Amino acid sequence: MSKTITILGSTGSIGKNAIDVVEALGNEYQVEYLSAYSNAEKLAEQALLIRPKAVCIVNEDSAIDVKSVLQNESIDVLTGRAGLLEIASQEVDVLLNGLVGSAGMEPTLKAIEAGNDVALSNKESLVMAGQLINIAKTKTGTEIFPVDSEHSAIWQCLSGESMEDVSKLILTGSGGPFRERDVNSFSDIAPDEALNHPNWDMGKKITIDSATMMNKGLEVIEAHWLFGTKPDDIEIIIHPQSIIHSMVEFSDGSVKAQLGVPDMKIPIQYAFTYPRHNPSDWESLDLLKNSELTFQPPDNTRFPCIQLAYAALRKGGTASAVLNVANEHAVYRFLDGSISFTDIPKIVESACDSHDFHNNPNLDIILQIESWTKEFVVNFRP
Amino acid sequence: MSKTITILGSTGSIGKNAIDVVEALGNEYQVEYLSAYSNAEKLAEQALLIRPKAVCIVNEDSAIDVKSVLQNESIDVLTGRAGLLEIASQEVDVLLNGLVGSAGMEPTLKAIEAGNDVALSNKESLVMAGQLINIAKTKTGTEIFPVDSEHSAIWQCLSGESMEDVSKLILTGSGGPFRERDVNSFSDIAPDEALNHPNWDMGKKITIDSATMMNKGLEVIEAHWLFGTKPDDIEIIIHPQSIIHSMVEFSDGSVKAQLGVPDMKIPIQYAFTYPRHNPSDWESLDLLKNSELTFQPPDNTRFPCIQLAYAALRKGGTASAVLNVANEHAVYRFLDGSISFTDIPKIVESACDSHDFHNNPNLDIILQIESWTKEFVVNFRP
Repeated sequence: MSKTITILGSTGSIGKNAIDVVEALGNEYQVEYLSAYSNAEKLAEQALLIRPKAVCIVNEDSAIDVKSVLQNESIDVLTGRAGLLEIASQEVDVLLNGLVGSAGMEPTLKAIEAGNDVALSNKESLVMAGQLINIAKTKTGTEIFPVDSEHSAIWQCLSGESMEDVSKLILTGSGGPFRERDVNSFSDIAPDEALNHPNWDMGKKITIDSATMMNKGLEVIEAHWLFGTKPDDIEIIIHPQSIIHSMVEFSDGSVKAQLGVPDMKIPIQYAFTYPRHNPSDWESLDLLKNSELTFQPPDNTRFPCIQLAYAALRKGGTASAVLNVANEHAVYRFLDGSISFTDIPKIVESACDSHDFHNNPNLDIILQIESWTKEFVVNFRP
Repeated sequence: MSKTITILGSTGSIGKNAIDVVEALGNEYQVEYLSAYSNAEKLAEQALLIRPKAVCIVNEDSAIDVKSVLQNESIDVLTGRAGLLEIASQEVDVLLNGLVGSAGMEPTLKAIEAGNDVALSNKESLVMAGQLINIAKTKTGTEIFPVDSEHSAIWQCLSGESMEDVSKLILTGSGGPFRERDVNSFSDIAPDEALNHPNWDMGKKITIDSATMMNKGLEVIEAHWLFGTKPDDIEIIIHPQSIIHSMVEFSDGSVKAQLGVPDMKIPIQYAFTYPRHNPSDWESLDLLKNSELTFQPPDNTRFPCIQLAYAALRKGGTASAVLNVANEHAVYRFLDGSISFTDIPKIVESACDSHDFHNNPNLDIILQIESWTKEFVVNFRP
C-alpha cells in the first residue's frame, strides 16, 4: 500500500528522523511536501534527496537560499506563514506535523480540514485547539496518529480494544534532569543544565518542558483530546528509565504497556505504517541491559506546571491555549536568560488567571488569545 | 451477550476462581456443566449454588456422595472418565479446562470436536497434542482462549495486531523459589520447600513445575501451538516480581506488555468476556507499591528442564507428549518422596531419549505414549 506524505518541520529533530524513516521504508512511501522554518541549507538538501512536489521555507529571509538551489529542479518553493498553511492543505495520505509550539496548531487544523490524516508530534495543536480540531476531524472523517512516544504507546495499547473498557491512561515521564535536585536551588538552574535531558535527545523547547514537567502536563491535555478520557482518569507516573512509554488500565485490572528504546523513529514509523509494524534496523530493546524499571509518584511541589495543566484542562475553553502559549514564551525568556527557571510556572499561572476566558472559542478567538498571551509574557516583570 | 459455560476441574484452584468470576459477572454467564475429580462435597456445594444441567465426578468412589446430595435437584450426575468426556462434548459457548496434567488433553480435544470454544488453563493439552488440537480447531472453527497468565498476556498484547508483524514472544517467569538457592543443594530440596511459591498461589503440580522451571518450558511449547511462533522466536526472561505477565516484540522494535496483580481471576474472566474487559472488584495494580520491576536471563544450568522442553518442541512429533507425561509423574514421585528434586529432569531426559518416536501421532498413539511414559517413570530407579 503506497502512501503520500507531507513533513512539516522537516529540518527539526522530528522532521529529520521522519525523513530517515521514510527513506528506510522505501518506494511505497513518497514525501510530496516539506516545510522548514529557516534552515535553508538543510531544507534544500532534503529536497534534492527526496524530490518532493514543493517545499516551504517560512522565514522569508532564508527563501532566496532555497530558491537558488532549487531553481532548475521543478520543485516549487513556497514561503512565509501563508506558504506553510498552503503546504498543510495539499492533499496527501498523511501529514506529519513536527513543528514546534503554538505555530503548529493552525497547520494541523488546515491539514484536517483538507482531509489529510495527521501524524501529530506537535502536541500544542491539541492543547490549544483540541475541541476545534476534533470537530474538524469528525467533519472530514480524518484521523490523528499520535507521534509523541507516550501517546503512541497508549494508541498501540488500545489496538483492538474498546474505549468503554478503559479505566485509566497512565502517562510515564522520566522526571527530567531535576527529579532529584534540591528544590531550593531551582531558581539557580541555568538553561544549559535544563537542556541536558537524561534519556531523550530532543529539540530545545520540549527539553525545557521536560525539565519543568510542563511537557507531562501538556501530554495530559493532549491525551484527553486524542482519546476522550476524562482528566481524573489520566495519571502521571515517574519512570526514570523511559523504557515503558505509557500504559492503559482496563476495567478488569489488566494493564497494557508499550516499551521500547527511547528513539522517536519508532512512533514516527508506526504513524506512517499503522496498523502494521514494519521491520526496522534500529537497536531493539534489551531488557537484560535495562534490567531495572522503577516508578515514583510525580512531585507536584517540585513541578507546579503539572497541576497548572490539569487545572487548565478541567477549566476548558481557552484556558489550555493560554497555558500553552504562556509556557512557550516563558521558556523562550528562560532560554534567553531574562527570567529564572522558577518564573516559568509563575508566569503561566499569572497568564491563566488574568486572561479573558472564552468557553467555546473559534479559531479567531484562539489566535487573539495567542497574541494577548505572548504580549503578556513578553512584558512580564518577574 | 449471554454465554453458556462448562467448567472442568471446578473444585481445583482454577475452577474455584472461575466460579467466583462467573458469579460476579452475573446472569448473562450461565454455567451448565461442572466436573471434579474426587472432591464430592465441594462439587455438590457448587452444583447447589450454580444449578448446572449436569455435573461429573470422575472418581467413582466419590460418586455416591454427590448423588446423594443432588438426588432431588434435577441435576444429572455423571461419573468416571467417560462421564468427563461426555461433559466436555456438551455444546456450550465456552468450556474452561482447569484440569491438572495430561488427563486434561482428551477433554480439550473432545470439546473442540464438539464445536466448543475452549478457555484453556490445562497447558498440557497443547504440549501433548498441539498439532491434533489445532487440526480439530480448524475443522470445527473453534477458538482457544488462553487462561495461563503468560499466554493471556500475549493474547492481549496481540489484540488488533497481525502475527506477521511479531518478531518475538517474551514469556516472563518469576524464577520460582530456587532462583537464588545454591545449586549444589538442589538434590536436598524437600517437597514442602518446592511447594512454597513466592508470588502465585496455585495447585501442587504447577507449583513444583515452577520450582523446576519446567512450567516455563511447557509454556514455550504451549505458546508455539497457540500463536504459531517458531521456537527460536519464543524467549524466556526472569522477572521475579510477576507483575509483567509476558510481552510481544514487533518488527519495528515496539514491545507490548500486559501487567497486573498476580491473580488468575483476570485471565479467567478475560477468557469469558473476550474481547471485552468487564469491570471487576479485585485489587488493581499499583505500580507505586510494585515500584521496581527487574529482569534476568534464565539460568539453564540451574534449571535444565527449560532446555529439555525447547529440545522436545524442536523435535516435534511425540517428543513433547513424552516430556510432559514424564515430568508429571516425576513430579508425583518427588512429592511422594521416592525421588529427589534433581531426579525430575534426569527422568524426563531419560524418557525422551528412550521412547519410540512418532512424527505424526494420532490420539491413539499419544495415549499409548502416555501409558508407556507413565510406566517408565514409575519404574525408574534413580
